Amino acid sequence: MSKIQVNNTAALGQVIDQEQVAALRPAAEAAALKLEQGTGLGNDFLGWLHLPSSITPDFLNDIEATAQSLRSKCQYVVTIGIGGSYLGAKAVIEALADNFAAYKPATTHVLFAGNNIGEDYLYDLIDLLKGKQFGIIVISKSGTTTEPSIAFRLLKDMLEQQVGKAEAATRIVAVTDARRGALRGLATQEGYKTYVIPDNVGGRFSVLTPVGLLPIAVAGYDIKALVEGAVEMEKAGGDDIFTYATTRNALYRAGRKIELLVNFNPKLHYFAEWWKQLYGESEGKDHKGIFPAACDFTTDLHSMGQWIQDGERTIYETVISVGEPAHSVVIPDDKANLDGLNFIAGKHVDYVNKMAELGTRLAHVDGGVPNLLITVPALKEKYLGQLIYFFEKACGVSGYILDVNPFNQPGVEAYKKNMFALLDKPGYEAESKAIKAKLGK
Amino acid sequence: MSKIQVNNTAALGQVIDQEQVAALRPAAEAAALKLEQGTGLGNDFLGWLHLPSSITPDFLNDIEATAQSLRSKCQYVVTIGIGGSYLGAKAVIEALADNFAAYKPATTHVLFAGNNIGEDYLYDLIDLLKGKQFGIIVISKSGTTTEPSIAFRLLKDMLEQQVGKAEAATRIVAVTDARRGALRGLATQEGYKTYVIPDNVGGRFSVLTPVGLLPIAVAGYDIKALVEGAVEMEKAGGDDIFTYATTRNALYRAGRKIELLVNFNPKLHYFAEWWKQLYGESEGKDHKGIFPAACDFTTDLHSMGQWIQDGERTIYETVISVGEPAHSVVIPDDKANLDGLNFIAGKHVDYVNKMAELGTRLAHVDGGVPNLLITVPALKEKYLGQLIYFFEKACGVSGYILDVNPFNQPGVEAYKKNMFALLDKPGYEAESKAIKAKLGK
Repeated sequence: MSKIQVNNTAALGQVIDQEQVAALRPAAEAAALKLEQGTGLGNDFLGWLHLPSSITPDFLNDIEATAQSLRSKCQYVVTIGIGGSYLGAKAVIEALADNFAAYKPATTHVLFAGNNIGEDYLYDLIDLLKGKQFGIIVISKSGTTTEPSIAFRLLKDMLEQQVGKAEAATRIVAVTDARRGALRGLATQEGYKTYVIPDNVGGRFSVLTPVGLLPIAVAGYDIKALVEGAVEMEKAGGDDIFTYATTRNALYRAGRKIELLVNFNPKLHYFAEWWKQLYGESEGKDHKGIFPAACDFTTDLHSMGQWIQDGERTIYETVISVGEPAHSVVIPDDKANLDGLNFIAGKHVDYVNKMAELGTRLAHVDGGVPNLLITVPALKEKYLGQLIYFFEKACGVSGYILDVNPFNQPGVEAYKKNMFALLDKPGYEAESKAIKAKLGK
Repeated sequence: MSKIQVNNTAALGQVIDQEQVAALRPAAEAAALKLEQGTGLGNDFLGWLHLPSSITPDFLNDIEATAQSLRSKCQYVVTIGIGGSYLGAKAVIEALADNFAAYKPATTHVLFAGNNIGEDYLYDLIDLLKGKQFGIIVISKSGTTTEPSIAFRLLKDMLEQQVGKAEAATRIVAVTDARRGALRGLATQEGYKTYVIPDNVGGRFSVLTPVGLLPIAVAGYDIKALVEGAVEMEKAGGDDIFTYATTRNALYRAGRKIELLVNFNPKLHYFAEWWKQLYGESEGKDHKGIFPAACDFTTDLHSMGQWIQDGERTIYETVISVGEPAHSVVIPDDKANLDGLNFIAGKHVDYVNKMAELGTRLAHVDGGVPNLLITVPALKEKYLGQLIYFFEKACGVSGYILDVNPFNQPGVEAYKKNMFALLDKPGYEAESKAIKAKLGK
């Protein structure tokens, strides 16, 4: 079976050695056991652990049928969600899409909204959708999260005005709680097709639920292969997962506070954003946790490259290396050779990219940046499924080694509470008074 | 005069106090004097310092005429460049453009290439341009930088095949060295219109040269207002600049190793990427330098927000707050109010965004994250010009306070050297032998 692989060789020898990594292996195995037995912190949010293997062909067929219905009617499908209800689908779609997809005709373009509070963002989106055939996937457990709720109010009104209430109801799909919440209530009332966000799957672990699967299917990608890849990784067990989790914890203990997730393919940009949420939100608590950052190379070698090579020695890199490009472009020969490029004429562009990758890894290791390598055979659904499950499981293991609850996110409430107080939201009267006193208002 | 403003009040009181900031003021003033007198490190790269006020209306008229010529002929103009020859133009164009510009018809779309070595990226671009009217702005001092050279070889061939060599020459503009280099030679030979990258302006400080101005003008934006804003900041002197430079250095000395540049407007995403290059490449050397990172809020409050609120206390935030949105969207009332949003019905979306911003700043300060605030009246050319010059000058001052040469980037060569050795580039025979021996080949 062709699959993703992890290699920590270039992470060893300078800052940490194999013994320090091996010393964490028992903790990693104990962590995996805690996940399996549900005896660790946050054990009410372990639904992702055996999610892939629990997905049935019928379930995927149903999602694909819904996707097909939206595709047949809609030039644009706006996916409304924030955080985990946005990043997973965005990551997979971008990894699989044409780099210039937005400029090209497509059956259906998947757009995203409700992931910010941008007045101009919503204005520009509404302007785009005017007179167009569009649909909505609205994703929210409660149906009251501020960002998606604002976007949904606006777009639902607009859609109903454009095609009428009855037709709009056939173009809106709600992904929400099984029973409770405002969105469940509305969906029942209006007769929307719905999918369930399982109670025991947190947002950042939700990409293999309908939260991610439906938008990915609407974009035209193979969710069966995606899930198949995840199942393979679920069943493959832990060696690569343990290598990643133990090595990064050993590096962190040795003072490497920043992990840079690096790609040499711009299509992985949003995959890194998904990873940043997964690890940042899972580990960044109790005044602990590696700071997750990301770079797109070689682009950022001409910006952050200097810092990485010569700045504070507080980082390490994890490189996601993609084996094969999807298409073929060969560097042409040029008689005049003014640019001096003829030494690589006739080569595939990706060959040069791979030498840049190898050269960069060697240069950064020489500069004192330990290097973890994750190889992915190609940017295809199956391997992305493997990669997703790999990072999810390694995150659970890693968080337990760090001794935090990897499955909660208490810190995300702080800004919301202040915002509601400042907006005089009903129920926040005491907080409103307090915050206004603080601000001297 | 309406202008950007800096406020460090919320950065003081926890990790550092006003005295520590004030103690760095003499160093900041000395740094500014060194810049002015050209007596500091890297003083052969100070061309940016009085660049804005040296730009003549005739020069801008000439750039605008070239832009107009490209716009009249080309549906797409591909800007080929990497690092500073890419990020400045990208940052300004994204800040001013419609959020969904790629999906909408436009006189001319500005695209970017030569900023990576993606085989699929180039394939997808070539596929887009097939049969389309397009032009090229190629930006390279030497004309031999690997990434842009590969892209230019491919696109130049393609353009010449599509419209013939003579017509292609009218659609290619070279921004390059005044006299030397492969691209200068080619441009002379082929009769391309050219602009000069001044010898004394480094890539990351080049956005107000034709490197940035030409693509920005082709995208349809007002480069006169952009330069006017920069001139205002150049003449306004240093208080805000000193506040930013001294506060961030005081925070760094107090153990705050990561600066998060934060926006509440997704249009500033690439402005942050430009800033990351400016500061990362200027300060990340001699095993020193703040690690520059960026977040788009509220989007990333639902991903990195947890780490920021509760993770390691090694960060501080700099918020870029934009005063006025360009357009108006009001949150509609809903009789049923299932989503509970009626308490903000009738409000502008941006009002909610501003309360999110204030609430977030308060929450993060309470969580131990010092906060610098930069207010920008609106995302308009003039204010972006102010902001650009502000960050450039503050970077020079800040780098001198840190006691590094803010104007070189020796670390960027390391990966290139390895890559050339691995690719058997002529002239790298010894390095090739060494690296292959190291790899056991």
